[in-house]
Amino acid sequence: MNVTVRGQTLPYRTVTFASRRNCVRLIEQRLLPHEFKVVTLPNFRATAAAIGSMLVRGAPAIAATAAYGLAQGARAYRGSDLRKFSRHVELVCQTLKAARPTAVDPVNAMDQVRDTMSAGKTVAEQQGLALAAAEEFAHQSVEHCRAIGRHGAKLIHDGARVLTHCNAGWLACVDVGTATAPLYAAQAQGRRFHVFCDETRPRCQGATLTAWELAQQGISHQVIADSAAGHLMQRGEIDLVIVGSDRVLGRTGEVANKIGTYTKAVLAHRHGLPFYVAIPLSTIDWKLRSGRDIPIEQREESEVLGAWGAAESPKSKVQSPKSRQRVYVRIANPTSGARNPGFDVTPPELITAIISPAGLFKPGELWSKRRLLESCPLGDRI
Amino acid sequence: MNVTVRGQTLPYRTVTFASRRNCVRLIEQRLLPHEFKVVTLPNFRATAAAIGSMLVRGAPAIAATAAYGLAQGARAYRGSDLRKFSRHVELVCQTLKAARPTAVDPVNAMDQVRDTMSAGKTVAEQQGLALAAAEEFAHQSVEHCRAIGRHGAKLIHDGARVLTHCNAGWLACVDVGTATAPLYAAQAQGRRFHVFCDETRPRCQGATLTAWELAQQGISHQVIADSAAGHLMQRGEIDLVIVGSDRVLGRTGEVANKIGTYTKAVLAHRHGLPFYVAIPLSTIDWKLRSGRDIPIEQREESEVLGAWGAAESPKSKVQSPKSRQRVYVRIANPTSGARNPGFDVTPPELITAIISPAGLFKPGELWSKRRLLESCPLGDRI
Repeated sequence: MNVTVRGQTLPYRTVTFASRRNCVRLIEQRLLPHEFKVVTLPNFRATAAAIGSMLVRGAPAIAATAAYGLAQGARAYRGSDLRKFSRHVELVCQTLKAARPTAVDPVNAMDQVRDTMSAGKTVAEQQGLALAAAEEFAHQSVEHCRAIGRHGAKLIHDGARVLTHCNAGWLACVDVGTATAPLYAAQAQGRRFHVFCDETRPRCQGATLTAWELAQQGISHQVIADSAAGHLMQRGEIDLVIVGSDRVLGRTGEVANKIGTYTKAVLAHRHGLPFYVAIPLSTIDWKLRSGRDIPIEQREESEVLGAWGAAESPKSKVQSPKSRQRVYVRIANPTSGARNPGFDVTPPELITAIISPAGLFKPGELWSKRRLLESCPLGDRI
Repeated sequence: MNVTVRGQTLPYRTVTFASRRNCVRLIEQRLLPHEFKVVTLPNFRATAAAIGSMLVRGAPAIAATAAYGLAQGARAYRGSDLRKFSRHVELVCQTLKAARPTAVDPVNAMDQVRDTMSAGKTVAEQQGLALAAAEEFAHQSVEHCRAIGRHGAKLIHDGARVLTHCNAGWLACVDVGTATAPLYAAQAQGRRFHVFCDETRPRCQGATLTAWELAQQGISHQVIADSAAGHLMQRGEIDLVIVGSDRVLGRTGEVANKIGTYTKAVLAHRHGLPFYVAIPLSTIDWKLRSGRDIPIEQREESEVLGAWGAAESPKSKVQSPKSRQRVYVRIANPTSGARNPGFDVTPPELITAIISPAGLFKPGELWSKRRLLESCPLGDRI
């Protein structure tokens, strides 16, 4: 999507590959929204370190980064001994996997790349196939998001006022995003609308990442406190809600997502407003039988007790370069502790539809449409 | 209530009067929770400035401060000419009133003091009556909060898990508080319970003031993100909700309070949990006919776009004196704006009961109980 740097607007992706120099290039997400920077990673170990340090985050984004990292590592091999090459590739995969050991998406992505590579009869052939497979993975990932956008755009009528929570934008994917995809598609179709971004305490991904994305794309938006949405709905100032998800249970239609999502669904239901969840098909968990079985991560107390930001005067309109330094401030009483559940689970009766690359579905009909979803031309590749 | 300073635990009030030195003494609330300090104000102009700069805040607290400030100003007069004295008293009142021109409570409090003063036949008599009236006003204010505590304590069963929003504690009153009164009373009765404090973005009065109060009082508590309460209710970890209010409509039972209160009421209703609103009788507005007519203050964008806190490492357990300096950090994307409604309105059907000094009432029965409430022995003096 678009990013404006020093007055110039250019399209960017979260992760790309420079094949001549054999480098992975990533947007340094830890500096956003206060600074935009693309870092060039010269070898697979640097790429693994970038995944591990959350320079890049979001399941689809780290999956593509791992796919590219594998191609990068494979292509760096000098020699023609296929057995030695295979051992080297195994080391590359293990290194990239160990960077975020609990994430399943990078493993699935690398499995796809290795499957494709195995057709090569020489080291050079396998190296070529590795890069082609990584590029194909990234391409499919973007196509999935575009399909979400096509299906979701019709829900954003001209003049719509949309509420979103957390960040399920292009920064979490290779491009386009999931919850943001219908917005970008509606914008491309010439529709005008306004987005309220829940700041999404405690980590404030709405105020930082989603607001940054929408500003770069020139979409009208405002940040609100997480507590303000109910009042805006009461006053008739919100027309629909779109969020992403970390896991949708195929059997029950329950949706796990960032803490606060459930609250927004309850409010939307009370006010008769549609509540949509935009996901790639890889987010559907066909195994778990109940939302109660979804583990809810209990995160660091310090996230709730304070906040990260750039030191400045509350009145200043323009930031000085110095003020871009992000600092942590303790907000809460110093002798108090916190409870910090990272996610919550929204039941299917509060969800109007799941916006997937294969179309819109009621959460309760996912299980009966399982074959269709699993064989979706856009669903079987990623 | 209790405050522990350098290892010593002593009872404090938000506002007191040192009659020999003719000084008003206030807890400097702008430094909390990072520093506890009591300031001594030597004359009525300093007292007015303290009200104006929000060194003290909360309607009952500034009302008592204005009452004491009037006594302070009256007692500083040297001379025996009653007409000149009256003009001086008028100047004192105007100065104190101008410090927070939209607040009605200080005006009502000063009217009470002047009524009592008027019985004096000499300057000296009126000066004596002024102080007696101010002390009586503060005393009644505390008695009202204690009565709220008596009526509300029975709602806090042993082992209860209570959710509260914003700060309606003793710092906003002379002592005891409103929403906190049932908690302190239940604690005094030997019951054990746990309080979840909504941090209450954007100004975080829950994380700063309520958490500080509860910590000083030794009440088990945790700060949570405003988005976390829905999840905790879903998991059966909250038993009841108590909040304060800025205005309760006597005709309709609608409750205006800090932004986010409505959301908590909607969530409590969905989960079948009782939702209580604790108020002094002075909070009831008998005139307005609809919650729609309550003006909703639109506050500074900077409150939502950033936060105030003490700079420190997120890992540090103990603060160095240097770190107590509160700084503002910009959290949100620097090119984004915000929408910041300060209050919302909760409809009566979501409220289990109003906890008043005169007892518990359904919000819908306030109007029919108007005479009783207005003639309540604790209600007619403040």
